[in-house]
Amino acid sequence: MATFTHLVRFLAKDGQVYYGDALLDAGVTDISKATHAKVIQGDIFGQHRVTDKVAEVRMLLAPLARKDIGTVRCLGLNYEQHAKESNLPIPKFPVLFYKPVTAIAGPTDDIPVASMAQEGEGLDYECELVIVIGKEARNVKQSEALEYVLGYAVGNDVSHRDWQIKRGGGQWSLGKGFDGWAPFGPGIVSSRVISDPNALHISTTLNGATVQSSSTKDMIFGVAQTIAFLSQGTTLLPGDLIFTGTPQGVGMGRKPALWLKNGDQVTVALEGVGSCTNRVVFDKPAPKL
Amino acid sequence: MATFTHLVRFLAKDGQVYYGDALLDAGVTDISKATHAKVIQGDIFGQHRVTDKVAEVRMLLAPLARKDIGTVRCLGLNYEQHAKESNLPIPKFPVLFYKPVTAIAGPTDDIPVASMAQEGEGLDYECELVIVIGKEARNVKQSEALEYVLGYAVGNDVSHRDWQIKRGGGQWSLGKGFDGWAPFGPGIVSSRVISDPNALHISTTLNGATVQSSSTKDMIFGVAQTIAFLSQGTTLLPGDLIFTGTPQGVGMGRKPALWLKNGDQVTVALEGVGSCTNRVVFDKPAPKL
Repeated sequence: MATFTHLVRFLAKDGQVYYGDALLDAGVTDISKATHAKVIQGDIFGQHRVTDKVAEVRMLLAPLARKDIGTVRCLGLNYEQHAKESNLPIPKFPVLFYKPVTAIAGPTDDIPVASMAQEGEGLDYECELVIVIGKEARNVKQSEALEYVLGYAVGNDVSHRDWQIKRGGGQWSLGKGFDGWAPFGPGIVSSRVISDPNALHISTTLNGATVQSSSTKDMIFGVAQTIAFLSQGTTLLPGDLIFTGTPQGVGMGRKPALWLKNGDQVTVALEGVGSCTNRVVFDKPAPKL
Repeated sequence: MATFTHLVRFLAKDGQVYYGDALLDAGVTDISKATHAKVIQGDIFGQHRVTDKVAEVRMLLAPLARKDIGTVRCLGLNYEQHAKESNLPIPKFPVLFYKPVTAIAGPTDDIPVASMAQEGEGLDYECELVIVIGKEARNVKQSEALEYVLGYAVGNDVSHRDWQIKRGGGQWSLGKGFDGWAPFGPGIVSSRVISDPNALHISTTLNGATVQSSSTKDMIFGVAQTIAFLSQGTTLLPGDLIFTGTPQGVGMGRKPALWLKNGDQVTVALEGVGSCTNRVVFDKPAPKL
């Protein structure tokens, strides 16, 4: 059983990388404000303990190390208003796609845009509630599904609409799976702290202007329903992440469309968790194929 | 640099699980016939050596342990004749989707069919050449792409057409990602042994009758082109697998359609590599959601 409330992974002032339990001032819930954390020893998904050693945070990292991350699942069209702005019907079942683990990045990392994703139009943001699975789950009932959750974070399902929709042959993964296109964090808030994940304000801010602002209560498939459904015949493992879809307000849904540019700053935020702010950085051209 | 030619992972007569280099009789290329292997010590993707210790094979396992498998990528519609039987246009770019690592199974494991995949129609087989990535690859040129390959195996991209196509909201992953729905093996043949992966006979046999029979030369995007394309802006890691699509002859493409049933035996085979034979086993009903 997890003993932390606000799990962070961070580079400390002493040059080491630690897992820790963030120390937040009274009334503060945004983990990105954490300056200190109690160091955690052991296996985050198994035997571990929050020690009394307090370390100073130099930089928050992706809240799980790559070796601790399993499969990264994502839902599409999981907010009613977003399905409408996409001119697509409300799905009857959760719409599932994946990102590779190499897409995962930290709450302040740059979002690198490869040459092939600089072509055409459609670089877009998507703020999402991220579920972190804490223990093995297969054929789980909806009424028990939340017991399998380690905690929640916020993530950005960065997408290139041309590759996702027009050039991906109908499959979304290619246009959403580039290196660093799934920043998440700033930490993971225990499901003991967030008892109702389906009533949290969620938003995106682009260069200081709010572009998405909604609540997870607009989700078509809530957290428990999503876990129960995805676990049917499929084992979810500790460290698996589920990005649960984005609300309305994405760049694609605007008239005129609003695409991310080199140098843009995007902040995704979730109530009770905090925010990730990432800068869009166009890669130098890659060698020709 | 890999020193093995026919990598296997196996349960030995002594009760231990080993990586090994299969010992094949002269003229035999089907790894599933291996009865003995030289035990390999060390990291398959790094420092390792083929020892002189010969172990007797009791059962071949998935040729990579779960901890050694990274991301499982799959291509759709990558054989011309299969795109035609699916009534879909020849894709301009590789069509990418993913399976979770929990889908990976060994060359003789049963294929479990969860309750939700027993509903409706459409349980289908797909024989595929599987590429195993051997070292980190990003922005790789096509002319150098084969240098990043550890070797090749054969796999079955088991699919449920209703969930894949009709009930998946257009995204294929759900109907292809159940536990054990990506058996592969029987071993991994080094790319030093298979110098041209684009000219291998590939087939599926269902209860003894041949249902798919083609050559990897019908692939629209060959092995080198696939790796070069997928590595653009996306880092491929050692242990990543790429299922490269299936030729014509799948159950969906037949008139009348031919769906897998409980108890069916499916064999997928690839020239120079060997075969995997898996039995379809319907799970007991899962608890209600």
